[in-house]
Amino acid sequence: MTLSMQPYKGARDFYPEDMKIQSWMFEKMHHVISSFGYEQYNAPMLEPVDLYAAKTGQEIVEKQLYAFTDRGGRNVALRPEMTPSLARMVAARFQQLPKPIRWYSIPNLWRYEKPQRGRLREHWQLNCDLLGGERVLADTEILMLACAIVDAYGGSEFVKIRINHRGLMDHVFAHHGLLGENALAMTKLLDARSKIGEEVFVREATLIADKKLLAFFDLPFERIAIEYPCLGTQELTHVMQVLGDRVQFDSSIMRGMDYYTGLVFEMYDQSPENPRAMFGGGRFDNLIGLFGKNDLSGVGFGFGDVTLRHFLETHNLLPQFGPKLDVFISLPDAGLFAQIAAIAAQLRPELRVVTALESGGFREQLKMADKLEARFVVLFGAEEESRGAVLVKDLIQGVQHEVQVSALQSFILERKGTV
Amino acid sequence: MTLSMQPYKGARDFYPEDMKIQSWMFEKMHHVISSFGYEQYNAPMLEPVDLYAAKTGQEIVEKQLYAFTDRGGRNVALRPEMTPSLARMVAARFQQLPKPIRWYSIPNLWRYEKPQRGRLREHWQLNCDLLGGERVLADTEILMLACAIVDAYGGSEFVKIRINHRGLMDHVFAHHGLLGENALAMTKLLDARSKIGEEVFVREATLIADKKLLAFFDLPFERIAIEYPCLGTQELTHVMQVLGDRVQFDSSIMRGMDYYTGLVFEMYDQSPENPRAMFGGGRFDNLIGLFGKNDLSGVGFGFGDVTLRHFLETHNLLPQFGPKLDVFISLPDAGLFAQIAAIAAQLRPELRVVTALESGGFREQLKMADKLEARFVVLFGAEEESRGAVLVKDLIQGVQHEVQVSALQSFILERKGTV
Repeated sequence: MTLSMQPYKGARDFYPEDMKIQSWMFEKMHHVISSFGYEQYNAPMLEPVDLYAAKTGQEIVEKQLYAFTDRGGRNVALRPEMTPSLARMVAARFQQLPKPIRWYSIPNLWRYEKPQRGRLREHWQLNCDLLGGERVLADTEILMLACAIVDAYGGSEFVKIRINHRGLMDHVFAHHGLLGENALAMTKLLDARSKIGEEVFVREATLIADKKLLAFFDLPFERIAIEYPCLGTQELTHVMQVLGDRVQFDSSIMRGMDYYTGLVFEMYDQSPENPRAMFGGGRFDNLIGLFGKNDLSGVGFGFGDVTLRHFLETHNLLPQFGPKLDVFISLPDAGLFAQIAAIAAQLRPELRVVTALESGGFREQLKMADKLEARFVVLFGAEEESRGAVLVKDLIQGVQHEVQVSALQSFILERKGTV
Repeated sequence: MTLSMQPYKGARDFYPEDMKIQSWMFEKMHHVISSFGYEQYNAPMLEPVDLYAAKTGQEIVEKQLYAFTDRGGRNVALRPEMTPSLARMVAARFQQLPKPIRWYSIPNLWRYEKPQRGRLREHWQLNCDLLGGERVLADTEILMLACAIVDAYGGSEFVKIRINHRGLMDHVFAHHGLLGENALAMTKLLDARSKIGEEVFVREATLIADKKLLAFFDLPFERIAIEYPCLGTQELTHVMQVLGDRVQFDSSIMRGMDYYTGLVFEMYDQSPENPRAMFGGGRFDNLIGLFGKNDLSGVGFGFGDVTLRHFLETHNLLPQFGPKLDVFISLPDAGLFAQIAAIAAQLRPELRVVTALESGGFREQLKMADKLEARFVVLFGAEEESRGAVLVKDLIQGVQHEVQVSALQSFILERKGTV
């Protein structure tokens, strides 16, 4: 039997060229999010199935969960989302943790889905959460953070955050007599609005909603704030005042049936090449209620790596990473290995240095350096050696210098930034 | 029913204080390993069970594997080690990948073990591998890399690498007529030597080995090189010449039954407080043989995060991380939120800044800043405001300055390094 060389269906191998992009994306996240005072956390890949039974969507638990029984008889699952683990960890140290809690994580998550563009079985997802604090100020902060992340990639001009409020929607539905199952059906319908198209939306909506409610769906926010004043309109007004034109009211943003109880939002790529929701989040109440009598409300979002990478590629926002290596040190003779290893040690860790592992002439060594995508090659000539020097060839500029071994590091450090 | 707040047995929650240590440990690894020209890769958490059936130890596959059947009927497992995934990825692109291949990864791995000190069900493990190149030069490079990693944490004085060679041992066993099952039994016995103690070792060894073989186990390497000349002694001699007193020959280093065929080694903490093997590795042949007719030999090692952290704690090598936050900006009045958010934006991302999410007087705000472990607090006074300035309190030095808002970032950047 020959084993397959492919990765598990719907999951990815990260070869160095992909890993480099992934690391670069996550590094930016770490940098921006830390600057907002958020601290990183993590939890195990496996959690008890029960942790997801209560709040995670029914479809996920029944059809998409990677669940199994461990050798000790415990029903466990690969995490399909991070929020339940966050809730568990916060509940466990509820008294000690200073509030508000600002936490983030970049876990890999698993869902048994039909793999398709932008939807994989294993993906990484940035999770940012702000628990506690004054509701509307916290909502505003989390939206500013979402903007700052996209901005850090140079993506600000392409995006807009569409916002809505579940409290406002409940208020409006109730006002128009839409309750129980009908309200639920309307929530689902709004959620699907952009997918099913206006015609289908209106036809379906007409079956459960009266004309005034249908009219509401197309009202500008200024009118809604006057006609349906409530906590929802107050909170949205505040958010819009601070965020300005980074946000846009959109009554069809509902974020499914999940946790959300207040602000809900989705970051949209506005450009015609990639017109889609990139990520979203919202406010949830009673995050830790499952674990006892304590309660904590929060606001947060999740941002997947597949969507982010697609966004960056669409808008040409990925950087040029430059040469893979700074220096390749040639090996004219295997007996000189200890010597070239010592030179390499002298250049590290400031420079990325590889020493040849096979001896050979100038041509072979240059070919090897080229294959490894090195910027500089150190070559040894008998004449230079007698002067305590080596030859340094710059493979990008195509020039060659004689350099004293003792000055090698500073010589290369000075030049490696220039192209 | 109330859900448990504990993490899954044998796995860890990483609260921010633990995550910070973990990130710091991994950052150092990335830095050092990149400077040796190694590139990072990753593979899915799930692999087909068959991938482990061939080369992973029988005990792991039968008793410790987290294996289950997915919703599509595939037999899959949470990876218990990274080498099989590495082999799969290399085999899939064997022709294209320039050799030697220098790759590393820091995966989380799962084994169903009885949790105990230093052995958990989920742990992270640095994997460094060098595939191709001249055998003995590659062996030497991988040992230098192992040293450089420990040195980067300031741990060089506490450790020694114990080395041996499976080829040498096979040669010696055969020379003394120890073959088949007896050779296997002796391998296991040597592997257990430090655990079972000298007395038991000698008693058991006497049952299968003759006196001359028993004497071999205590010979110094200089004598072995003369009495048992072979490829193994040649390769070990080269390694010792380059590595000097960083390495030490030890005929009881066998690294179990695994992949190894040439050099084997273990990094030991020599200090009396923590006398144990920290990590190990060795040379393996035919890494990708499972996937077809191609072949590639390599050398590598794995270094677990639990062991590393324990080592760093034992020797007091973890750093002081300093304040969690650079700046806390107070909120005298909720209506000023947009203004303080703008000041925060001006300070980021160079500084880690939190804005208050609840308004309050000086005392409350200082208390909050203290709870969040901020270094500086920005306070607003009516008088200062009239001059376009704010008050900056340094919570470490206990001093307070009036600073123009426009000069705030440079003021804090200058001072934050001083204690």
